[in-house]
Amino acid sequence: MLTLYHHPFSPSSRFIRMVLFEYGAEFQSVAVNPWERPQELLRLNAAGTVPVIVENEGPAICGPGPIVEYLDETRGYAMADRRLMPDHPEARAETRRLVDWALGKFDQEVVGHLVRERIYKQTMPRTAGGGEPDSNALRVARANIQHHLKYFGYLIASRRWLGGDRLSFADFALAAEMSCADYLGEVPWSADENIKNWYARMKSRPCMRPLLQEKILGMPPAQTYADLDF
Amino acid sequence: MLTLYHHPFSPSSRFIRMVLFEYGAEFQSVAVNPWERPQELLRLNAAGTVPVIVENEGPAICGPGPIVEYLDETRGYAMADRRLMPDHPEARAETRRLVDWALGKFDQEVVGHLVRERIYKQTMPRTAGGGEPDSNALRVARANIQHHLKYFGYLIASRRWLGGDRLSFADFALAAEMSCADYLGEVPWSADENIKNWYARMKSRPCMRPLLQEKILGMPPAQTYADLDF
Repeated sequence: MLTLYHHPFSPSSRFIRMVLFEYGAEFQSVAVNPWERPQELLRLNAAGTVPVIVENEGPAICGPGPIVEYLDETRGYAMADRRLMPDHPEARAETRRLVDWALGKFDQEVVGHLVRERIYKQTMPRTAGGGEPDSNALRVARANIQHHLKYFGYLIASRRWLGGDRLSFADFALAAEMSCADYLGEVPWSADENIKNWYARMKSRPCMRPLLQEKILGMPPAQTYADLDF
Repeated sequence: MLTLYHHPFSPSSRFIRMVLFEYGAEFQSVAVNPWERPQELLRLNAAGTVPVIVENEGPAICGPGPIVEYLDETRGYAMADRRLMPDHPEARAETRRLVDWALGKFDQEVVGHLVRERIYKQTMPRTAGGGEPDSNALRVARANIQHHLKYFGYLIASRRWLGGDRLSFADFALAAEMSCADYLGEVPWSADENIKNWYARMKSRPCMRPLLQEKILGMPPAQTYADLDF
């Protein structure tokens, strides 16, 4: 049995939840507030971050990159043509580049600001850094998202999926980030038709259903969040 | 033939140079100042970052993670017991976790500040953000390095190498980051005996020799930088 330590609105945790679903891996999940630095999490991952998975009595596998590689190494072969990591080294490199872009650059420049300011800081005590959103951080995120959407739209215009002609981890990494921004109504969908159509395809996958039903108390999602025809 | 686009004092570029040497992969290198956002680099990597490699007429492989995975997928098997990625999925996950820690967390909290403030900003024009080092960023880096060294020292105390009983990519990722901090005399070597002994072992590897001979005009390295018995 797999155990996943995650936060419901951590984009990289959502990425792993979607991949576990796609790979048909049963798991139990433990929700964690990483900013509380709980001992149980720190014992598993000295970095104090989620996602982390533990398989049976095995060691903790920490961080979204190591986790998807692990899942693919232990289960990918059996997925046959539904495998989410391509076979060719060049295509694998492109998948990894875009996973890193989504969870790294896009998160640091856009979604990380939105989630921290508008979700985490609303549930954190003031002593832990909670409080009003930093309007400067939000302004930066809202300016940056335009450039990122344009680039992703440019890629998708020339490919069937984000990383190439086949669905890959890259699509799920980006969809996970987008879903958090979308909950907050922060995605300017009119900016790029290609990215909107791509996200509609992703949203209709069963793996997204549980995510689209989750809500934060006192903070309802944007109207289009769970709507498949947004 | 491989071409590497790099900056001599970008820690993740140094990591790739060391791995290319260890894997016996011949390459030509092109030094780049990423902050100048040169067209040739942007055409290869829309993120505008180094390292990037190109093999023959193939596509660009961008970023340290995708590059080492690519090198291991295309050359690792032939390395036999000198391969730098372990075989077992759990050990691979541990290697990747520590590579991510060194190039991600350690870089963001420590070495990235040092290199940007003390090297990059000294060679950048003021219009591109160059100028005096931000003493606050340096103070943060100098406080943070203590915690990181303690953690790395704790790992190495119970293992032969950083990621386990065998030399792995994790050792080279950390050595690459440490070498940049060490050039600047910013590593408090007396803080942890284990990490000092480990770095002495890394420093004596032939792959580090070219790095230890590089100097920045007008900014000589710390006295111990090239000294194998520091």
